[in-house]
Order: sequence, then structure tokens, then C-alpha cells
Amino acid sequence: MVITIELTNRQELILKIVQEEGPITGEQIAEKLNLTRATLRPDLSILTMAGYLEARPRVGYYYSGKKGNQLLKEMLNKMTVKDYKAVPVVIKEDTSVYDAIVTMFLEDVGTLYVVKERGTLAGIVSRKDLLKAAIGKQSLQDLPISVIMTRMPNIITCQIDDLLIEAANKLIQYQIDSIPVVKPLDNGEGLEVIGRITKTTIAKAFVELGKEKEV
Amino acid sequence: MVITIELTNRQELILKIVQEEGPITGEQIAEKLNLTRATLRPDLSILTMAGYLEARPRVGYYYSGKKGNQLLKEMLNKMTVKDYKAVPVVIKEDTSVYDAIVTMFLEDVGTLYVVKERGTLAGIVSRKDLLKAAIGKQSLQDLPISVIMTRMPNIITCQIDDLLIEAANKLIQYQIDSIPVVKPLDNGEGLEVIGRITKTTIAKAFVELGKEKEV
Repeated sequence: MVITIELTNRQELILKIVQEEGPITGEQIAEKLNLTRATLRPDLSILTMAGYLEARPRVGYYYSGKKGNQLLKEMLNKMTVKDYKAVPVVIKEDTSVYDAIVTMFLEDVGTLYVVKERGTLAGIVSRKDLLKAAIGKQSLQDLPISVIMTRMPNIITCQIDDLLIEAANKLIQYQIDSIPVVKPLDNGEGLEVIGRITKTTIAKAFVELGKEKEV
Repeated sequence: MVITIELTNRQELILKIVQEEGPITGEQIAEKLNLTRATLRPDLSILTMAGYLEARPRVGYYYSGKKGNQLLKEMLNKMTVKDYKAVPVVIKEDTSVYDAIVTMFLEDVGTLYVVKERGTLAGIVSRKDLLKAAIGKQSLQDLPISVIMTRMPNIITCQIDDLLIEAANKLIQYQIDSIPVVKPLDNGEGLEVIGRITKTTIAKAFVELGKEKEV
């Protein structure tokens, strides 16, 4: 169990002294503060337990350089794609652009995944791709989605054991709205689509962080 | 300064004893653990400082019921719309749907805000709205955006001092992609559009949480 503590002024002062003058013994710190070594014992043990100070026998205390957001990192490192992924909405390669648009409205998603037999990923198509096609000259009923989709291997994917924060980072880095969660097939014949991570997924996870819960 | 500490097994045990049997004195806890009161002193002071235990003179320690994610709450409560908002992309009410689509591609945004004179919010239009119009029968050049936009007062807005987590919550709750950041005009004549918060904004903030920084 990880807990959080607001440091007292005295503890912050001790931290500062050790940062500037460490390694320094407990007795020397006590002397600087005009306090007894016994009075400082709880403060030093808190700072040591928190990982800010390290104690070396016959040398004294020195500053570990640890930063303060370990708890948050710990929480973020527990959030994996597996626990947050949504159900993917898939269409076949020969689906018309018109039918793809209809599917997008019916399923109310921002991105469709295009799959081959056995659910392996062939392409991906966003609202933006469909909008671009819709203002073009071609008949949407006659245009197969495979003509306008982004194809493998140009698709950013993730896997269920990836951290959610890694997936979020890909969404930002590649300026995309959605990442298919895939599972490589045993025979090496492609990537099976098993989920999706979208900016909505990330926004939900962010909101969830603010809800009351035990760490 | 707020720090985090991983509790030792003994501290977790003390917490459990106080939860189950508090109020209980330090001597009684020490007795249960076959330890001296002095040995327990740092443990009790850590648990008290962290706010898990409260000590009442002549009564003993009792459990405060505090949850463990105070640090995270503190961080989230520092993130306001002001520090994260992006620049809004606006069009006029008489813009054609076709020109709106072109603007959306040129500016590479998912939502356009429709404004009246003085930049006051009149409507909002998403990629989804434009896609719906694009597969309709009407000429996109002749159709003004005001016909298809969502109008005030049916627009979810936020203000610069709102918490980012509140804005994120609105995005999820109302299933929208973008929230205009507005400032009420002094004369009560509407809301001036001064920014936008989107799911991209939230995903960026989420990614940022994972970056190393001092709390």
C-alpha cells in the first residue's frame, strides 16, 4: 500500500540541508537545527522510507534524487490496454464507402477497421477519410472501402498487455483517433483485431482517475 | 511538498488493528505486536502524518477513513481549462457546408465553432454532422452551415477556470468530441468563444501525467 504525506516545514528543511550538504550525519543535522537527534528520528525515518534520503553507515544521510510522483507512475503502470479496450467495429474490404458511412453512423464510432478472412487487419478508415471521399466526384455506392483505407503495414497498432499510457502516446504522436488492439496469429499470417483504443477511451480513463477509489 | 511512501508490513498491520479495534492506545497496539511503544513511535507518526490515523489524548488512535489518492486529486485539481485549451477554429453562419468541410481539412480539426459578430457562439458542427450532410441530396455549396449546426442553447460549454477533469467529464457524459471555452460578454449578449477543449486535449494531458516532473 502506498500513501501520501504532506511534509512538515522541518522535514522540508532537513531535505534541503541534506541536498546541499550531504552526506551528513543525523547528529550534524540535529546540531544545525538546534534539536536533539532523538527529536529528528521520526523525520529522518519518514524521509528515508519515502526514498528521498538514503542512510549509509558511518557516512550519514545523502539525497537520493527521487522525484515526487511515484504514486502516479505506479497507478499509470497498472492501467493496461486489456482493461480499457472497447469492442472493435469491423467491415470487409469489399464494403462500399456508402455502406461504411452508414455503419459508422449505426455503430456511432469514429473509426472502422477493415478486415480480411479470420478477422485479420487489412486497413483502417476514419471519419476524415470518409468525409474526403464523400466530397469527391465518385459514386460512394460503387467505391470499395479498400480504395480509400489506410493499409497495413501503415497502421499503428497496440497489444493487450501494452500500457494505456503508451497507447495514448501513440494517439498523440501519430495524430490518430483510434488504435486497433491486435493479436499476432500463431502462423504469422497477420494480426487479428480484438479491440480498439480511442481518444474517448483515454478521456474516460482520465475522468476515472479523478473518481474516489482506494489505490 | 507532498511525498509518497510505501507502507511496511508492520505499518499495514497497525492500520488494520486500528481500523478493527480503534480507538486504541499506542501501548495496546504495542502489546498486540509484542513490541515496545518506542519501537512503534515512527510507525504511528507516519500513519498519523499521512492522515490515516488520528490521535486523541486519553482516548488513543482511531482510523480517519482517508483514502489513498489524495496526491492524484491534488494534481488533477491543479489542471485547469486555461492551461490546456487549444485555439478555436471558427466560421460564420453563412459559410457553406462545402467551405466548412474545406476549412476542417485545412485546419485539421474535428469540430468547427460557428460565430456571430464579435465572436459570440452561435453553433457547433462536427465531422459527423458534415459527413451526414455530405451523403445527403442537397448541394453542399448551396447549403449554409447554420442549417445543419447544433445551435445555442443546446451547446455544452466550459470556462477557463473550470477544472480540466470537469471538461473531460462533459465530453464523456454528453458523448461529444469538443467543448468550446467561452467567456460571457459583460452586456449579457452571448458567449465569446476563446478556446476549445477536445478529446485530443485530454489525451495529451493524460500522456503528460506520465512524464517525469516534480509535484
